[in-house]
Amino acid sequence: MLAKRNAFYAQSGGVTAVINASACGVIETARQHKDQIGKVYAGRHGILGALSEDLIDTSKESMSAIAALRYTPAGAFGSARYKLKGLDENRAQYERLIEVFRAHDIGYFFYNGGGDSQDTALKVSQIGVKLNYPIIAIGVPKTVDNDLPITDCCPGFGSVAKYVATSMREAGFDVASMAKTSTKVFVLEVMGRHAGWITAACGLAAENESEAPHVLLFPEIPFEQEKFLARVDEAVKKYGYCAIGVSEGIKGPDGKFLSESGLKDAFGHAQLGGVAPTIANTVREKLGYKNHWAVADYLQRAARHIASKTDVAQAYAVGKAAVEFALKGQNAVMPTIVRKCDDPYKWGIGMARLKDVANKEKIMPRNFIARDGFGITEKCRAYLRPLIMGEDYPPFRNGLPNYVRLKNIAVPKKLDGEFEV
Amino acid sequence: MLAKRNAFYAQSGGVTAVINASACGVIETARQHKDQIGKVYAGRHGILGALSEDLIDTSKESMSAIAALRYTPAGAFGSARYKLKGLDENRAQYERLIEVFRAHDIGYFFYNGGGDSQDTALKVSQIGVKLNYPIIAIGVPKTVDNDLPITDCCPGFGSVAKYVATSMREAGFDVASMAKTSTKVFVLEVMGRHAGWITAACGLAAENESEAPHVLLFPEIPFEQEKFLARVDEAVKKYGYCAIGVSEGIKGPDGKFLSESGLKDAFGHAQLGGVAPTIANTVREKLGYKNHWAVADYLQRAARHIASKTDVAQAYAVGKAAVEFALKGQNAVMPTIVRKCDDPYKWGIGMARLKDVANKEKIMPRNFIARDGFGITEKCRAYLRPLIMGEDYPPFRNGLPNYVRLKNIAVPKKLDGEFEV
Repeated sequence: MLAKRNAFYAQSGGVTAVINASACGVIETARQHKDQIGKVYAGRHGILGALSEDLIDTSKESMSAIAALRYTPAGAFGSARYKLKGLDENRAQYERLIEVFRAHDIGYFFYNGGGDSQDTALKVSQIGVKLNYPIIAIGVPKTVDNDLPITDCCPGFGSVAKYVATSMREAGFDVASMAKTSTKVFVLEVMGRHAGWITAACGLAAENESEAPHVLLFPEIPFEQEKFLARVDEAVKKYGYCAIGVSEGIKGPDGKFLSESGLKDAFGHAQLGGVAPTIANTVREKLGYKNHWAVADYLQRAARHIASKTDVAQAYAVGKAAVEFALKGQNAVMPTIVRKCDDPYKWGIGMARLKDVANKEKIMPRNFIARDGFGITEKCRAYLRPLIMGEDYPPFRNGLPNYVRLKNIAVPKKLDGEFEV
Repeated sequence: MLAKRNAFYAQSGGVTAVINASACGVIETARQHKDQIGKVYAGRHGILGALSEDLIDTSKESMSAIAALRYTPAGAFGSARYKLKGLDENRAQYERLIEVFRAHDIGYFFYNGGGDSQDTALKVSQIGVKLNYPIIAIGVPKTVDNDLPITDCCPGFGSVAKYVATSMREAGFDVASMAKTSTKVFVLEVMGRHAGWITAACGLAAENESEAPHVLLFPEIPFEQEKFLARVDEAVKKYGYCAIGVSEGIKGPDGKFLSESGLKDAFGHAQLGGVAPTIANTVREKLGYKNHWAVADYLQRAARHIASKTDVAQAYAVGKAAVEFALKGQNAVMPTIVRKCDDPYKWGIGMARLKDVANKEKIMPRNFIARDGFGITEKCRAYLRPLIMGEDYPPFRNGLPNYVRLKNIAVPKKLDGEFEV
């Protein structure tokens, strides 16, 4: 049995409706193993909390507050878009991490994020060997984009999928009932920078081809204006209206984003948003149909009120499994979701090596996208359907979801110097 | 007792999450009075269905299908943006209505809509006298904009209010957790062309001034850029981030819409949308803060999955009351919501004359808006709070709301000629 040491947990990258459910899984499971894990310290603002020795003592939070994380969206400890450089590029950062970890007797590192974050977890796991500091680093998967490899799906995705499919169905009912004299084309822009999983999920709203959405625009498929307009016109003539789901990341045949703001985030990715009005204007100019557009933006990834019960359960399970892996002495691994059966849906927890996960993006298989590029296949539906199953409503107070705000009490600092992040 | 005659019901103008609950109230109540009301015929696409003799026989729908209207958003029979002209301007339209009503023995006219639609209901009620055709016309209130006079609130508004407040709270949690290294300013654009009720409802998300939203932009308050930017900057410096709720209809000091697409709807109103990116760009250019924006558009008014239980109950109640008024021989009236007590909330049904309701807009009282114009007052909160109380989830199937699609079987036509609408 390993010596009893403290754990560090941090949230990284864009938050989701269920990343706190993973935090809940980590903390509750750690609390059940007090003989092996001392306290769980959370990084305030993700890894920045470790670098700046700004740690949150989660042991100061009540059982009920931690339990409430299961139904509270976004990052309860603060997340960060901050990518550690390589060990050779910025050795000082890693030495600082070790300094902080040593000062607080941290022997477990749980890092909750997407592909970039799994890369960070991998680098931290390597400190043990390269800088002679014993630490176990486990990744906890999270991303609304559903683009991590190996795992069947990513916690966070199922809830966005349920939100966009529900929203598309509701907006579809709206437009269908008004189309005779008003809006005939509706465009909903959803997230998914390079992978069309969220766009595909919009497709679940339709139970047959007459229902919304009639056209999906995937980042994997180059946008061809003439083909697109022909499809829209066909839908309007056939069904009276056309509902379109579009990924923020669609590109033209030249490979450029249709709507590029020119800004980049800390990972160097372009900051997107606003392709819906571009698409809507094209429809108006070329086809003359009255249209409306919506951009769901953060609403979709924060919508805990309509979270998928399956997603919540999986988010909790990967947090729990991460702690269990660590206690078994596993290092540089990440729990995965393993699909055992589509219908009835059965899943379990597997394990992936971080080196196989880090910095890799899983895009949609071509056979999940209809041959003409504007819809999803039955194979895709079979994959997506279970992920949105079940409702898991948060408690409400005064008519609104009663989400928890933690006390987030800082661990007293033990180090003198400041560290410039 | 009046002779047994058929009823006509139609939906008009923009649909809501609960207008079908009013339809449910009308139809179920009519079915309970078969001695006085024969069949309920619904207009396909609102009043157009009457003009074109395209009537839907609701008696062909099962009890359970009609009951399902209570939890199905949008307009089950189709709505229309179509305003009847005055009797003197287009007498042929009214003569056509009478021709259709007479052919189908329609003696009751229930018209479910906002201010423009109550005007139509009023005109129809006047046919009785002016064209010597006995008909009872009752308005059924509906509008997400909450801008009808006399009634304490409008069915449809409470559910939008609950949706935008929930969305703002969720997005606020998201941005708060990311602001250290990422988005610092978030803008949510909501509906409400001339009245700021929906914008005000965003304000319910905050339980204290540190919480989202920090700034609200009302159509009632001219937009002053310098004052606005100062408020945003102050919030970011004080709380780390700033969440903004903005009405689609905000105007500059010159009285012009900040974002005007130039299109007009059938009622002659400008078609708006897209002020959020304008506001976001202003923040980025002038303050340099990274930002994101969302435009909820139809998602907000179709979001039956997060409807207010109070709103659903009131929508049903006004439908029921409309039939009861008609059976008592009332004409040219509209049921209203009467508030009896704020806390605990108590309400009942009242009655307004259509002539007092038609074509009037109720904007926010100035004392509902904070002195600086960027927030809501305690008086406003006390008014809004009860309207979003209670959840009333629809049933789900395969992970999605299981909304009803009616058969909408047409009543055989009895008239020969076509009528050019």
